[in-house]
Amino acid sequence: MMTGADYLASLADGRVVYFEGRRVDVTTEPGFVEACQWIAGTYDRFFDPAPDATNPVFHIPRTAIELRERVEMLVNSDITMSLSAVAFALLTAAPAMASVDPVFGERIARYYAECVRRDVRFAEVITDAKGDRSLGPSKQADPDSYLRVVGRDADGIVIRGAKFHITAGPLAHELIVMPTKRMKAGEEDYAVCCAVPANARGVIQIAASHHPRSDDTRSHPISARTAHPDAMVIFDDVHVPWDRVFLDGAVEQSAAVAHALGLWERLSGCAHLAEVGDLLAGLAQLIAEANGTDRIAHVRDKITDITLYATMVRACFEAALANAVLRPDGMLVPDELYTNAGKYAAANDYAVMVRHLHDIAGGTVVTAPTMADYDNTDLRPFIDKYLVGRSGVSGEYRMRLFHAIRDLTADSWGGREAVSWLQSGGGLYAQRSVLRGHYDIDRAKRLALDVAGLTDLAPAATVRS
Amino acid sequence: MMTGADYLASLADGRVVYFEGRRVDVTTEPGFVEACQWIAGTYDRFFDPAPDATNPVFHIPRTAIELRERVEMLVNSDITMSLSAVAFALLTAAPAMASVDPVFGERIARYYAECVRRDVRFAEVITDAKGDRSLGPSKQADPDSYLRVVGRDADGIVIRGAKFHITAGPLAHELIVMPTKRMKAGEEDYAVCCAVPANARGVIQIAASHHPRSDDTRSHPISARTAHPDAMVIFDDVHVPWDRVFLDGAVEQSAAVAHALGLWERLSGCAHLAEVGDLLAGLAQLIAEANGTDRIAHVRDKITDITLYATMVRACFEAALANAVLRPDGMLVPDELYTNAGKYAAANDYAVMVRHLHDIAGGTVVTAPTMADYDNTDLRPFIDKYLVGRSGVSGEYRMRLFHAIRDLTADSWGGREAVSWLQSGGGLYAQRSVLRGHYDIDRAKRLALDVAGLTDLAPAATVRS
Amino acid sequence: MMTGADYLASLADGRVVYFEGRRVDVTTEPGFVEACQWIAGTYDRFFDPAPDATNPVFHIPRTAIELRERVEMLVNSDITMSLSAVAFALLTAAPAMASVDPVFGERIARYYAECVRRDVRFAEVITDAKGDRSLGPSKQADPDSYLRVVGRDADGIVIRGAKFHITAGPLAHELIVMPTKRMKAGEEDYAVCCAVPANARGVIQIAASHHPRSDDTRSHPISARTAHPDAMVIFDDVHVPWDRVFLDGAVEQSAAVAHALGLWERLSGCAHLAEVGDLLAGLAQLIAEANGTDRIAHVRDKITDITLYATMVRACFEAALANAVLRPDGMLVPDELYTNAGKYAAANDYAVMVRHLHDIAGGTVVTAPTMADYDNTDLRPFIDKYLVGRSGVSGEYRMRLFHAIRDLTADSWGGREAVSWLQSGGGLYAQRSVLRGHYDIDRAKRLALDVAGLTDLAPAATVRS
Amino acid sequence: MMTGADYLASLADGRVVYFEGRRVDVTTEPGFVEACQWIAGTYDRFFDPAPDATNPVFHIPRTAIELRERVEMLVNSDITMSLSAVAFALLTAAPAMASVDPVFGERIARYYAECVRRDVRFAEVITDAKGDRSLGPSKQADPDSYLRVVGRDADGIVIRGAKFHITAGPLAHELIVMPTKRMKAGEEDYAVCCAVPANARGVIQIAASHHPRSDDTRSHPISARTAHPDAMVIFDDVHVPWDRVFLDGAVEQSAAVAHALGLWERLSGCAHLAEVGDLLAGLAQLIAEANGTDRIAHVRDKITDITLYATMVRACFEAALANAVLRPDGMLVPDELYTNAGKYAAANDYAVMVRHLHDIAGGTVVTAPTMADYDNTDLRPFIDKYLVGRSGVSGEYRMRLFHAIRDLTADSWGGREAVSWLQSGGGLYAQRSVLRGHYDIDRAKRLALDVAGLTDLAPAATVRS
Repeated sequence: MMTGADYLASLADGRVVYFEGRRVDVTTEPGFVEACQWIAGTYDRFFDPAPDATNPVFHIPRTAIELRERVEMLVNSDITMSLSAVAFALLTAAPAMASVDPVFGERIARYYAECVRRDVRFAEVITDAKGDRSLGPSKQADPDSYLRVVGRDADGIVIRGAKFHITAGPLAHELIVMPTKRMKAGEEDYAVCCAVPANARGVIQIAASHHPRSDDTRSHPISARTAHPDAMVIFDDVHVPWDRVFLDGAVEQSAAVAHALGLWERLSGCAHLAEVGDLLAGLAQLIAEANGTDRIAHVRDKITDITLYATMVRACFEAALANAVLRPDGMLVPDELYTNAGKYAAANDYAVMVRHLHDIAGGTVVTAPTMADYDNTDLRPFIDKYLVGRSGVSGEYRMRLFHAIRDLTADSWGGREAVSWLQSGGGLYAQRSVLRGHYDIDRAKRLALDVAGLTDLAPAATVRS
Repeated sequence: MMTGADYLASLADGRVVYFEGRRVDVTTEPGFVEACQWIAGTYDRFFDPAPDATNPVFHIPRTAIELRERVEMLVNSDITMSLSAVAFALLTAAPAMASVDPVFGERIARYYAECVRRDVRFAEVITDAKGDRSLGPSKQADPDSYLRVVGRDADGIVIRGAKFHITAGPLAHELIVMPTKRMKAGEEDYAVCCAVPANARGVIQIAASHHPRSDDTRSHPISARTAHPDAMVIFDDVHVPWDRVFLDGAVEQSAAVAHALGLWERLSGCAHLAEVGDLLAGLAQLIAEANGTDRIAHVRDKITDITLYATMVRACFEAALANAVLRPDGMLVPDELYTNAGKYAAANDYAVMVRHLHDIAGGTVVTAPTMADYDNTDLRPFIDKYLVGRSGVSGEYRMRLFHAIRDLTADSWGGREAVSWLQSGGGLYAQRSVLRGHYDIDRAKRLALDVAGLTDLAPAATVRS
Repeated sequence: MMTGADYLASLADGRVVYFEGRRVDVTTEPGFVEACQWIAGTYDRFFDPAPDATNPVFHIPRTAIELRERVEMLVNSDITMSLSAVAFALLTAAPAMASVDPVFGERIARYYAECVRRDVRFAEVITDAKGDRSLGPSKQADPDSYLRVVGRDADGIVIRGAKFHITAGPLAHELIVMPTKRMKAGEEDYAVCCAVPANARGVIQIAASHHPRSDDTRSHPISARTAHPDAMVIFDDVHVPWDRVFLDGAVEQSAAVAHALGLWERLSGCAHLAEVGDLLAGLAQLIAEANGTDRIAHVRDKITDITLYATMVRACFEAALANAVLRPDGMLVPDELYTNAGKYAAANDYAVMVRHLHDIAGGTVVTAPTMADYDNTDLRPFIDKYLVGRSGVSGEYRMRLFHAIRDLTADSWGGREAVSWLQSGGGLYAQRSVLRGHYDIDRAKRLALDVAGLTDLAPAATVRS
Repeated sequence: MMTGADYLASLADGRVVYFEGRRVDVTTEPGFVEACQWIAGTYDRFFDPAPDATNPVFHIPRTAIELRERVEMLVNSDITMSLSAVAFALLTAAPAMASVDPVFGERIARYYAECVRRDVRFAEVITDAKGDRSLGPSKQADPDSYLRVVGRDADGIVIRGAKFHITAGPLAHELIVMPTKRMKAGEEDYAVCCAVPANARGVIQIAASHHPRSDDTRSHPISARTAHPDAMVIFDDVHVPWDRVFLDGAVEQSAAVAHALGLWERLSGCAHLAEVGDLLAGLAQLIAEANGTDRIAHVRDKITDITLYATMVRACFEAALANAVLRPDGMLVPDELYTNAGKYAAANDYAVMVRHLHDIAGGTVVTAPTMADYDNTDLRPFIDKYLVGRSGVSGEYRMRLFHAIRDLTADSWGGREAVSWLQSGGGLYAQRSVLRGHYDIDRAKRLALDVAGLTDLAPAATVRS
């Protein structure tokens, strides 16, 4: 297992990462270094010096209790959850890949074991450039609009394309590349799934970051610790050896990994957003109490809305676990219907919960003096005097609470989070479609026919038995 | 145990029931007889001739599986669920009553055992007349606006007042009377809980019914079977012997039964509305297919909304069961937070789901010809010709599907159901208040302080440990 | 001009109307007679004995003030608005029809003048049977699924088909038949618009009614006066003389009347629902005051939601009038964008406003004793005693207020209204589509490009100048 | 009249402004200079060299057309609208102030005339520090929690306190100080309205700014031009001469200016948000077209939602103008009911419209490469290749469109805007309360009684005639 220090050292591997037009060293670049440290911290937290020890992020849950523990462990480790979900997705999809050719299943097993041994982290490399979204991969003006195999030889394949929204890509060791959707006949070159080291020749990452910049980081108490870069990753004719190729050309199974990843992404999103819901409820209650408005009916009502949100999302997570299915290979897979319902509802209503928080907190969310103002001894007495709230609530506490709310919900990182919660796991519409696909509409139709007394009169094709 | 026939016979006990100004015999009055038959049917369904057999509606669940089975059994028996929930509530509240005086606990236990032996059904008698709702019971112009004890003697107590919205009251054997809310000091006479036979002297029921009337009942395929009367029950100085008095004067415990009843009511409401959600989804899908509109995007989208509704409500039910708590006395009590969240969300969004169904089905919901029109041989060919839908969908089937939708959602029974789902278990606001009371806001505040890095700066009183 | 008595006499014209399988006389059949009387009352209200007098329902508005007066006059006359809107639609569409052949314009003008002279009322005959809604008129298994011309001769045309949801059809003199949508090449026989007397040979109406039936009508204080029948109208090879044919075969103009009708329907719907919004707000406030709950925060909040609803809908009506356009032929046409926005928003949110009213009023909406109970001298004292509300609020007043609420929103007529508001003017989706068609998206795109500083970089085809 | 250059010169008046702990010169400080230039630009735009010319921002509208022109002119001038609204509010409230003492009315008239002559700009100085919001001004632990008069002498008054959320305060010439709400008996010292020069001794501004900082401003195409600072303004015993005091001690009229300001603020907010709605619709349509997703049903549906939002808000603005009232003093005052409804609805639904835009645009909103990346010749070919969209849409155009969306809605300025739209004009709850106060609930009650047939039976106190 790696320690945090080992992890930081491992990033000096020659990887090519650009940020705002400059090539950067991720371990020293402001805005990346904090995220590196955060991940290093989770390495240290889970470190076990025993020679055979393996990182618990790789332990496969076999009971609802283990699954819950795993998810709860990772909700608190944030980025690390993202950086391991794809490995689970690969395992979840392995039977589907093996059905094409047993060698794919064997390669996944070997690769997974080796990664566990090396204790590395993974990026989910899924969303293609896509070009004109009204056309499929093979109909694009530029055939590289979806990542594809442009060459094959005895040693492996060569891939070309670009992938978007790669969470923490610059901080991962392994890039798990997969098709963004199910491919069709004639699109065999796009049906490729493989693993690429982050420092492979031809891999170029262009990073976006939402960490605090010229400001005093004390005004960004949350993002200063947790913001991490996302990247657009370019695969400029990257060679991938065969033992890292897990699918090549089988269009029928091309969506298997993306599908499995979606499930684990949405489960963690559901668990995470339940926690975020609690966080928003807590912030709303704290600022209402600090303002002395927590007894006002409409304020209480809006806080109740947030608690209802958090509770409904958590209920879906609980239901997904209570109805999880144990697969023949020993992996416990959460219920897809509840997982998707929870993630969708959470993403869909997040914007309104943030609005409730802003409504309760008031305009000072965006107009509070900063910690630098507070450092100025001419201004501090005024801030102490005029920022106080209810009896016992100091100006400094209240001011810093406003900064936390702004940082989380009304500034760069807040904007990034709002968009990410919507889009993670595939966007609202994709989440609805998956939900619909897993809902037993035939049972609902039979129930309706029975209640209406029309079972015998229904057209033959109405309900599949 | 009673058979259905035994049940019907048992109703001829001299009870005083009025309907539209006339005193009626519930076993023969149109609109009551169908409900009596329905209940009789559930007696027959559960009947076991073994001498020691007891009705499964009285079996106390001790595991999540038993609790789920009980609820699922009763969702399909509808009225019978209502007619037994209050007995469970009495048992759930028994420890609270016994804490006032052990004799209350003993009376409840004896009464429950005797009722199990007799296999009787119960009405929940809770909502008071209330007069001016801005004033408490003891402040009303008429002290009888809340039911109260107006006399006590060696044999028992005398009660006076009126209770509203008594579901299936005219069809129950036992009326379980309880305070509608927690009473305050000085309101001891209102803190009364007792059991009254439906035929006790001084008990007068004024029933409302939403069953089909002058119409052909074939146009009301659902309500013709399931509509049941609700009643306003007047207690005109009714004498109740001591062994049927379970609380008298202890204001602190006066809400215990109502609270317990609320929990079981909302759990059954949650389970029931998950099923109703599936029913609405099924009807929407059936009529969309019959119309040939099931592939249209906005129709699919609205059906997905209904499936999401049903799934979220069911998730709360699942979470309530997965987090149920086994009490020392062996009763498994569902989680209050998830139960209330599910019932609230279901009641709150029901109106919109019905609107989706109406939107998908189209105006024929309220303008379809009737079965009497279809019987007319001059009209039948036109109905056969012009009511057909997609290939294979007959005019008769489609017409009857419209009638089922109208009957369930856009006619007398539909109106009664819409109001009842809102109000059952105490109205939207009460459900929100209970939800809020069970949400762990202190944990949320601690989480928020931790994320904001303000744990040390927070005012001392902010968070209870 | 006709008096009310003239109107009632005019209905004895041999028309063929069925209700619940029986052929009925609309002037004596319960459920129709009240609606006849209502319409007769509006005749009397507008009657002017001057020989040249014409009914103000036919006066063409030429200013915003006249348009407002006309709409306000008709909102209070309810059915009469429906019974004259289609005449306006015919006039509005006349230029489009005349563009096909001037004779059509001339026939409309003559027909309109003659109808004004006769002072008759019109039914809008638009929605076809439609069969499989995923197929167009000419692709249906039965070519009569959309009404069509099946014969032409020197005297006129012969039409066959069925039309649905014909509001007050049994009470109108003239049926204005028009295509339900724009027809395509090859569908010339479906592109027919004409006027048919209600008593023409081959016209058969099957009526649905939502008036009170076996109940005491005092329990239905609103529907007893205002409920009117809707009909399915069958055209069983009906001959229509040429001077009543306003379009025949011109598919490009086939939607002109339906389009014009939609505008007037939605304008009146918008105005009407603003008034219904006020009515719901008034009922909610009255029952809250009667209950003594009007000071409770959540009750006030819900009433405010209803007032907001009424105000937003009325704002759209005001904006439609303020931006109305005077056509060259002197007719003032309301703004389509605001008209559609108002009707859509009103229809979309109606269900939630009704839920607010039910939530505020409480369960007694569906469980109140009836006036027949109140007539019973044994029961009346109990109703007087236990139905009272806040000081000064009698039991009888409060009970009757509950009946009004139930009748309007939670009973047969309430169900009919809920569905009708959704579907009138073409259903929610159609209203959205029209809204979208009238919104100036090109202006919005130019604004966005300007704000983003991208006007010069935008692809050439992005914005039409 | 002043030119832009005059305006910039006028700011060098010794004013005390702090930003991030440093005292700054607003005409040179990054983040302030752009806003200064923007305002200077509006001076130049309206400049007229005629000696008697006055700035059109001061012209008092006397017809609906003038009012519309004024609002439309100012929507496009943005900050200038804020910087003149309070002058209008002062005029609107002048009769109320004069009713206390004619001298107040005369001072306002003289002050206004002088300001028009000087062509200065105003800040609205209204929101107090407030301390414990559950207590009134006179009950606070610190009596300065609301601004108050702490001294009076022959020359004038001395005021002390702090005011929050002062839009563009550092860029205004005159601070119009007014009570944040209606004061009560005993709070006379808080009932003060006066005008203070921005450079008066004792005035200290602590500014917050949301302009782009270390980033390339090309990544912030909107905020780089339009972001302006907000300030907390401290009045540290500031002396105000009598001719600048417009109210002192009259608690009954203490809310008059705030009330008038609220109306003009909400009218401009309503007009502005209608424009913002169009902007969001335009951006959504542009990015959907660029992505090739504009024909997808759910994308179209969400864009239609945004157009509906923009249309409903604009309808309220139109209705407020169409129902404006001309006051005896010649000022045209918009209708309060429609104004508040529009502002409330716009603020309430803004968050959901932004979510729609994010949902349509996709994750690239927050992960797009920057212009600095595009400047790098190693990266530019990849951006050109992989950021392209539908045929004809260049990578650069699409990338910059994402930056515009992020800057407006998902970054610092976007967060500031989201909070500001909610809170401007007083927060959602205040807007609802004002709406409720202006709605004619008595008319609604009379309508309901009439429809229910209960006019004669209603309690006497029910409806004010």
